[in-house]
Amino acid sequence: MDTKKEEAVAYLGPKASYTHQAALSEFPESKYIISPQTTIEDIFAAVQSSTASHGVVPFENSSNGSVVFTLDLFADLHGRYPDISVCGEIYLQVHHCLLGHAAKSQGETATSEPAHGISTQPGNPRVKPLHDIKHIKKLYSHPQAWGQCKLFLAAYFKGIERQDVSSTSKAAELVAQNTTGSSAAISSRMAAGMNNLDVLAQGIEDNQGNSTRFFIIRRQQDVVAPDAQNASVEMADYKTLVSFTVEHGEPGALADCLAIFKKHKLNLTSINTRPSGETPWHYVFFIEFRGRKRADGAGGAVNEALQELEKVAKNGRWLGSWSNKLKE
Amino acid sequence: MDTKKEEAVAYLGPKASYTHQAALSEFPESKYIISPQTTIEDIFAAVQSSTASHGVVPFENSSNGSVVFTLDLFADLHGRYPDISVCGEIYLQVHHCLLGHAAKSQGETATSEPAHGISTQPGNPRVKPLHDIKHIKKLYSHPQAWGQCKLFLAAYFKGIERQDVSSTSKAAELVAQNTTGSSAAISSRMAAGMNNLDVLAQGIEDNQGNSTRFFIIRRQQDVVAPDAQNASVEMADYKTLVSFTVEHGEPGALADCLAIFKKHKLNLTSINTRPSGETPWHYVFFIEFRGRKRADGAGGAVNEALQELEKVAKNGRWLGSWSNKLKE
Repeated sequence: MDTKKEEAVAYLGPKASYTHQAALSEFPESKYIISPQTTIEDIFAAVQSSTASHGVVPFENSSNGSVVFTLDLFADLHGRYPDISVCGEIYLQVHHCLLGHAAKSQGETATSEPAHGISTQPGNPRVKPLHDIKHIKKLYSHPQAWGQCKLFLAAYFKGIERQDVSSTSKAAELVAQNTTGSSAAISSRMAAGMNNLDVLAQGIEDNQGNSTRFFIIRRQQDVVAPDAQNASVEMADYKTLVSFTVEHGEPGALADCLAIFKKHKLNLTSINTRPSGETPWHYVFFIEFRGRKRADGAGGAVNEALQELEKVAKNGRWLGSWSNKLKE
Repeated sequence: MDTKKEEAVAYLGPKASYTHQAALSEFPESKYIISPQTTIEDIFAAVQSSTASHGVVPFENSSNGSVVFTLDLFADLHGRYPDISVCGEIYLQVHHCLLGHAAKSQGETATSEPAHGISTQPGNPRVKPLHDIKHIKKLYSHPQAWGQCKLFLAAYFKGIERQDVSSTSKAAELVAQNTTGSSAAISSRMAAGMNNLDVLAQGIEDNQGNSTRFFIIRRQQDVVAPDAQNASVEMADYKTLVSFTVEHGEPGALADCLAIFKKHKLNLTSINTRPSGETPWHYVFFIEFRGRKRADGAGGAVNEALQELEKVAKNGRWLGSWSNKLKE
């Protein structure tokens, strides 16, 4: 990767967002201009127009599923982002905190954490609050965070008003501005420090392994790698994303497409569907699998599979191949 | 269907929501007690506990895709809703309006609508506002509605603050309460009448065919129908929903499952995946297809396919068979 400082990397801002943390893990500020954007579409536009050399976009969360805004931008119904492709991925462990103002009158009467004896029961939250939370009348966070902290919210904030905001770091900002102290944010520990807020509870996500996967996008180019001739490296250590539609109303059209990947022993790692945007109840499919497209054209399981896919699918598009970062 | 008035039907409230309209289309108030609920989970709980005989839940929108909250309740990770199954579906055309207070000083300077000469270009909104909208500084709606009106919002409300609320009808209520007149709601025409608001624009959805599909749920029971022996009726006029997981890391596991439906000529009508909730990056699959499970056990394409599916999939669950209502 080029290391001159002029290269800009667009990410979903503001600062202290999880996407910011993901971007910094791959693109150190000493070498890149890290540029916050307001929406995921802004990131696609910055990369398409070459304003940024790379973009970092959230793709899926292990608890909450796919980010449909990102999928719809890859589907690119209006042909605005034809050159965008995926060139890498970043996995980030997401540990949510409840940030706010600890009640002064209560003192620091921290309860134990994690919630011993409860954590192993399915359907109960993993942790208890560190401080009294009775004064909290309103919560702020990004919609994805509610879905990742369902058990904690059901146990401690049932019926409490929730306000959706554009990011978890924005939520922390708003709580810091509220001088009554009666609001709290689901946000990151990094945001607590930046906004001078107390951590009222930590690790409040339902699943300890809660992670978000981000894609690194850039303008499309052929993938050239020195180990392209090594079949075992190609299969195990890369992933590829493709999108396509199928003939509606034909039994087995999707099964025929997936059979191609099976025939070439390409293991699927994710499958998503979104409305095609053209006709109601028609879908575009996103298939991700282990393997890599080779720049030298024919040959290799992925290249052969993509050629066969063209014969049974419609509107097929290769959306990138990149190095697998999931350690299992 | 039983017609005694004591039967309660739970739907996603409040009144004048699209789910309310869908529920009324199938369950007239003269025969049923129509009971609004705050969340989709409340509807599942009401039916599981037999507080309501039926529930009406949103499943997918033709523009915006699946309702992940509903999918996760069917996945039922914590075993709370084991008896819920789908017994019917309702398609409702969704025409969004922009509701607010027309600016008095501007008079009724309605611009033409639909936007002639623009409507055929992809990426442009289908309609123009009926009234001046310069005084609108804040918009309220349900998150799904933003996704269904992207083009109108990009053309006329770029950068304007958006507030997510729990339903489109709640959005209209909040705008009616705001006496400054500077806010507007994306909501239904029915909500304009109930809240004494002006229709500032109508038909603002991106796709004219914008529709939402609702499921009718009830406690599970075998499907007994007089025409169960008629193979052609079974294939064409019913749908079935199943969920399952597959052995992770085995190439072609999902392909093998889908091949079963192809073998039995069962056309897939939707496919969805959600995080399994147990291990990160493992998924539960929801497959919907044309056909119906027969109550008399063996025989019939669907029953045979479900038996074969048990051998290759894990945690397989039949989630219901019902009469297809999509007219093509």
